[in-house]
Amino acid sequence: MDAIASLYEMFARISPVDWALSATAQAHLDNLTKPLGSLGRLEELARRLYCIGEGRTPLEVVPMRMFTVAGDHGVAAEGVSAFPQEVTGQMVHNFLQGGAAINVLCREAGIDLVVVDAGCACAPFPDNPGLIRCRRGQGTANIAVGPAMSLDDAAKSLLLGIELAELAHKKGFHCLGIGEMGIANSSSATALFAALLDLKVPLIVGPGAGLKQEGVRHKTAIVEQALEVNRQSLQYEGAQRSPEQALQVLAALGGFEIATMAGILLGAARLGLPCLVDGFIATSAFVVARALCPAAADYGILAHSSAEPGYALICKTVQQSPLLQLEMRLGEGTGCALASTLLRAAAAIYNDMATFDAAGVSS
Amino acid sequence: MDAIASLYEMFARISPVDWALSATAQAHLDNLTKPLGSLGRLEELARRLYCIGEGRTPLEVVPMRMFTVAGDHGVAAEGVSAFPQEVTGQMVHNFLQGGAAINVLCREAGIDLVVVDAGCACAPFPDNPGLIRCRRGQGTANIAVGPAMSLDDAAKSLLLGIELAELAHKKGFHCLGIGEMGIANSSSATALFAALLDLKVPLIVGPGAGLKQEGVRHKTAIVEQALEVNRQSLQYEGAQRSPEQALQVLAALGGFEIATMAGILLGAARLGLPCLVDGFIATSAFVVARALCPAAADYGILAHSSAEPGYALICKTVQQSPLLQLEMRLGEGTGCALASTLLRAAAAIYNDMATFDAAGVSS
Repeated sequence: MDAIASLYEMFARISPVDWALSATAQAHLDNLTKPLGSLGRLEELARRLYCIGEGRTPLEVVPMRMFTVAGDHGVAAEGVSAFPQEVTGQMVHNFLQGGAAINVLCREAGIDLVVVDAGCACAPFPDNPGLIRCRRGQGTANIAVGPAMSLDDAAKSLLLGIELAELAHKKGFHCLGIGEMGIANSSSATALFAALLDLKVPLIVGPGAGLKQEGVRHKTAIVEQALEVNRQSLQYEGAQRSPEQALQVLAALGGFEIATMAGILLGAARLGLPCLVDGFIATSAFVVARALCPAAADYGILAHSSAEPGYALICKTVQQSPLLQLEMRLGEGTGCALASTLLRAAAAIYNDMATFDAAGVSS
Repeated sequence: MDAIASLYEMFARISPVDWALSATAQAHLDNLTKPLGSLGRLEELARRLYCIGEGRTPLEVVPMRMFTVAGDHGVAAEGVSAFPQEVTGQMVHNFLQGGAAINVLCREAGIDLVVVDAGCACAPFPDNPGLIRCRRGQGTANIAVGPAMSLDDAAKSLLLGIELAELAHKKGFHCLGIGEMGIANSSSATALFAALLDLKVPLIVGPGAGLKQEGVRHKTAIVEQALEVNRQSLQYEGAQRSPEQALQVLAALGGFEIATMAGILLGAARLGLPCLVDGFIATSAFVVARALCPAAADYGILAHSSAEPGYALICKTVQQSPLLQLEMRLGEGTGCALASTLLRAAAAIYNDMATFDAAGVSS
C-alpha cells in the first residue's frame, strides 16, 4: 500500500470522542466536596479527559511527552521573518543542549521532551538521545512560487507523526504535546488557516517572531501570492473538503514540521490519547488534522491563546477556547508545557477528591 | 505596646517594591534565546519577582507555603449563602483529612499546605500537624446589625497573619499563598470592596458558592444594610483613608480569616516575599492590606480571575490582572495552587535559559 492509501485507511480507524460519557463524569464531579461546577474549566477538562479515555478511570495524563518539531520553509527567501533561516538549526542545537525556553519549561513540568528534525535546511545534526532525525527534505519549496512539497511527502510526513505517537504510546506516555521551530513558518500557517478556514489573510496575519508593520504588510502580500499561485490545489466543491483535497492543501502550503505535528495529533486520536496543541503554528497543524479527519479534532486541546492578532478569530472559527492567556508568542511547545499542569490538576481533582458522603460534608 | 500600635510600627518597615530594578531584569530576559518579549506575562512575572527580591538571583519561589484560613461569619444568620454555617467546620475537617480540592492541588503542585482556624464557630478541631489553631472568636458578629469585631480583634488577627508569614520565612519558604473557607464570607468581602474601593454593591455582588437570582437580591440588601449600619466606621475625608480608618473598616465589615490573610500579605511584604492571592475573598484581604499600607500591594500577585461577576471591575479598580482565567469560584487557595506553576516557570526561565551568545544563536 502506498503512503497516501495507508493514511486514508488509518483515518477510518479514528473513533470520534464519545461525548455521551460526559454526563457520567459530571455526576462524579458533582459528588465531590465543592459547590456544583465551582472548578470551572478544570471540570470541563476532567470531563474531556474522561470522554477521550472512553470512561477509563483513574484519569491518567502523566507521563507526558512533548514533541518539538523543526522544519525549514522555502518562503523564508521572501524575507517574511524577523530572523534569518539559520536560526532554525541554531535553535535545534540549543534544544539539544537544553538551553531553550521549551527545555526549561519541560524540566519544570516533568515532561519528556523529544526534538524532531522533520526537514531542516542546515547541515545534519549529530546523534543525540533527545533527537529524532527524519528529514523529508532540506526545508520545503517556496510556497510563493509553487507547492511546498509533493503529495507523497505530505503523506509521509503525516505518517511519521502517526508513528511518533504510536512509539510514545508504546513507551507508556498518556498525553502528548506538539510544538515547533521553523523560521518563516507563521507564513505557512497563515496560508493554511486562510485556505482551510476560509479566512481573509489580513484578518489573521501577524508579526510572528517580531516583524514591524512594514514587514507584516510584505508578509500579507507573500501569503496572498502563495494562495494565488497554488489556487488549483486549494479548490473544492460542496460543504467541505474531502481528505484528498485537504492533503492537497497541506502539500501546497504546509511545512514538514506542520505536517508531522498534524500526524502526531492524528496518531493520538487513533490511540485515544489527549494531545496538547501549542500556539499559532501548532494550531495550523490542528486545523490540518481536522480537515483530514474531523473526528481527530476533539483529541486536540488548545493550550495557549497566541499573541498573534488573528488567533482569536481562528479559535472562534474552530470553536475552541485555549486554556491559558499569557500573551506569549514563542512556540516550541511552551504553551503546552505550561498548560500540562492544568491537565494534571484536572485529573487529580477527578481521581483524588473526597465525596460529600465520605467527608461528612453537607451538600 | 498594644496590638494596634505595634501594627502601625510594622507598616512603617514595609519597603515599596523598587520597580527601577525592572530594567535590569528585562535586559537579562532580552539576552535569552527567544524573540524579544515573546514570553509575555512570564517575563512580566520574572521582572516582578526580581524587583520583589531586590535584585537577588537566582529567582527563588520554591518551596511555597499555602495558608488556607477559615473563619465563620455572623452574617450567615441572614441566609446569604447557599450552604449552612456548619459547612465551614466540615470543610476544615475535610482539609485536615486531605480530601478537598486545595489538598489535591497542593499535592500536585508540591506546595506545603497549612490550615488556619482563625475564628470558626464549631467545636474546636482536634490537634493536627497541618492545623494552626488560633481562633479569635466563634465567628464574627453579624455585620448587618453592627461591627464584625473590635478594633483590637482586627489588629490581633492582622498580627497573627504577620506572625504566620514570619514563621514561614524562618522555615525557608520563598513564596506564600492565601486562600480561605468561610460560609457567608463573600458577603463580608463584598462589603469590604464596596467600602474600600467606593464601588456600588449591585455592581460587585454575586452568587458566591451558588445562590440563585432571588438569593443574590437578598444578599445585596443585606450587604447594603451592613454598610448603612456601620456607616460611622466607614467615613473618611480627603483622598484616601488613613491606616486607622482602614482598620475601622476591617473591624466593621471583615472576617477573622480575611484579616488574617491580609496580615499574611503584609508580613510577606515586610519580608520581601511574593504572595499569591486567590479569588474573590482573598482579594478582599489584598484590598484591606492595600488600604492599611499601600506599599504592601505590589507583593500580592492575583492568581485567578474569579467567576464572581463583579471581579473584573474590582481588578480594574486595583489595576491588577490575574494570571489565570479558568471560570473557577471555589476559593480555598485553588487559584494560587494552579498559578504557582507559572511563578515557578517564570523563575526557571530567568534562571536557566541560555543566552544568544552562549548558545550561538543569531539575535
